[in-house]
Amino acid sequence: MSVVTLAVDAMGGDHGLAVTVPAVATMLSRQEHLHIILVGQPEPLADAITKAGLDGHARITVQPASELVAMDDSVAVALRQKKDSSMRVAINMVKEGRAQAAVSAGNTGALMAVSRFVLKTLPGVDRPAICTAIPTVSGHCHMLDLGANVDSEPEHLLQFALMGQALVNAVDGVRHPRVALLNIGEEDIKGNEQIKEAAGLLRDAPNINYAGFIEGDGIFAGEADVVVCDGFVGNVSLKTMEGVAKMLKNMIREEAERSWLRKLSALLALPVFRGLKSRMDPDRYNGASLVGLRGVVVKSHGGTTVEGFASALEVAELEARRNVPALIRDALAPVVNSADA
Amino acid sequence: MSVVTLAVDAMGGDHGLAVTVPAVATMLSRQEHLHIILVGQPEPLADAITKAGLDGHARITVQPASELVAMDDSVAVALRQKKDSSMRVAINMVKEGRAQAAVSAGNTGALMAVSRFVLKTLPGVDRPAICTAIPTVSGHCHMLDLGANVDSEPEHLLQFALMGQALVNAVDGVRHPRVALLNIGEEDIKGNEQIKEAAGLLRDAPNINYAGFIEGDGIFAGEADVVVCDGFVGNVSLKTMEGVAKMLKNMIREEAERSWLRKLSALLALPVFRGLKSRMDPDRYNGASLVGLRGVVVKSHGGTTVEGFASALEVAELEARRNVPALIRDALAPVVNSADA
Repeated sequence: MSVVTLAVDAMGGDHGLAVTVPAVATMLSRQEHLHIILVGQPEPLADAITKAGLDGHARITVQPASELVAMDDSVAVALRQKKDSSMRVAINMVKEGRAQAAVSAGNTGALMAVSRFVLKTLPGVDRPAICTAIPTVSGHCHMLDLGANVDSEPEHLLQFALMGQALVNAVDGVRHPRVALLNIGEEDIKGNEQIKEAAGLLRDAPNINYAGFIEGDGIFAGEADVVVCDGFVGNVSLKTMEGVAKMLKNMIREEAERSWLRKLSALLALPVFRGLKSRMDPDRYNGASLVGLRGVVVKSHGGTTVEGFASALEVAELEARRNVPALIRDALAPVVNSADA
Repeated sequence: MSVVTLAVDAMGGDHGLAVTVPAVATMLSRQEHLHIILVGQPEPLADAITKAGLDGHARITVQPASELVAMDDSVAVALRQKKDSSMRVAINMVKEGRAQAAVSAGNTGALMAVSRFVLKTLPGVDRPAICTAIPTVSGHCHMLDLGANVDSEPEHLLQFALMGQALVNAVDGVRHPRVALLNIGEEDIKGNEQIKEAAGLLRDAPNINYAGFIEGDGIFAGEADVVVCDGFVGNVSLKTMEGVAKMLKNMIREEAERSWLRKLSALLALPVFRGLKSRMDPDRYNGASLVGLRGVVVKSHGGTTVEGFASALEVAELEARRNVPALIRDALAPVVNSADA
């Protein structure tokens, strides 16, 4: 097995070094054929490395970066004023071929803008998209776009479909992933003009296993491997999922704490709650891919835990190992050729 | 307390009479000042009434309708070919002033089209919307539009805001409901043009307590009383909620049934699960209002239970009692006047 190198923005996210460095320690102990470039401000980074017991680790390199992109920095600030940010330097590592993927828990808008500026999009990709795995009753599916684009044209939805298909093919080993379009009904006549036109494009594409329309509840029913949607709709749907899951978790806790008898009974039922948690765990599903770029970039949730950031590193490692950008380029070749013709 | 009369499409929904008539029995026993007109095919309806022990009930009237709108009937069929459907006749009752509200579990598209055709929209309302209560950590909020419209213009979102505000004011007694716009970020610069323009309209409206943007997870955080969105986005979000809740329910059951020990422990924790259910119960939140019409029409989930259909009847009863259409007309008066000026 060849060695994969990941460039990690060690400063990004709500918890910065306190989460990123311990997560790197976890991943290095799990995965032998992995090298990590930790990018960040030298002094605090050195402290965090010592604290995590990683001093002198053979598979860690430190790459200094003097600035950091704050969670509320605008895209313009991140792009134009912070050219030596840990986020930007991590992405530069990918551009220069020194790493095969970059991972950051920094703000999404900035990460997408900087990645796009530094790495550029693949031929045939008008707009990169954000894609992540979503739990379903039978495993998981991948959904895109989750917020990189608002007001996508039907041609963009076709590109998302091709990119999502190539990704699922590579990371899940699904030969002919079922690709569905997110809509407000399953009948052909439902939806807006954009969706109806996109459905025609997907139906006519020779290399897409088009599964038709899917509704919001169908995402979780295991009906599709790839769910395609506009970034506005996808982002609202993703955040809705997060909101419902969080509310339910709080309600379970509240209900379990209403009396000592309930506390005791909930304690006895802990294996049930743990089983549920392991299947719905936001940590396990952390790590969204920025697809359509000439390099692998993975975005971690800003508020994630050590375990969650480790999941994002795993996503990046797998995509780098399978060389997902090259597969996406191949998947989009027919679109590029037909556009040239 | 004055008597409210509801016209009930007894044939609509996946389970038709088996659900609607027992739900009417439940509601009549709960609520004294209520009269029900049961609309449907005379023979099966009479059987269902007998079965529910409602023969000769003083507060039930039967209104015959020879046809029924099937769940998969197109809008065109419902509107043009089934003029004596139980759905249409129930709405006619409202139009004729014989009932103050109509309730149906029939298909949404048909119900909206027939309601709009028969009742007409209120002055200032370009497009009626679908609105329902959504559970939050601190109670509930109301969200609209949930699928009556795709591609809403900013002016339509303003109308939805005014309608939602009037509804919440009437049914929840909230004096100045906080009205938020569903978006993919909370900062002013986020979102598409439609949302940014709508934000300007809501901010400038003198009689709206505008609370800014809200994200998908914010719906459940109790940050707003009224959540306004385009019907496409709202429908995807609503169905996403339903899908996540259903998946979690299935996962809890699966996890609880993995071993006899788990079964036992889950049984002991039943009060916790029951507490959770009572707060998230889809039955309790059944009943979506078609707002913007010259009359109250409530749509029940097609696959609902007796308890769920009773909730939809409750929603209709309350809106009829508070005369929500008149309140919405008043709320929209400034918009109508400014359009005339």
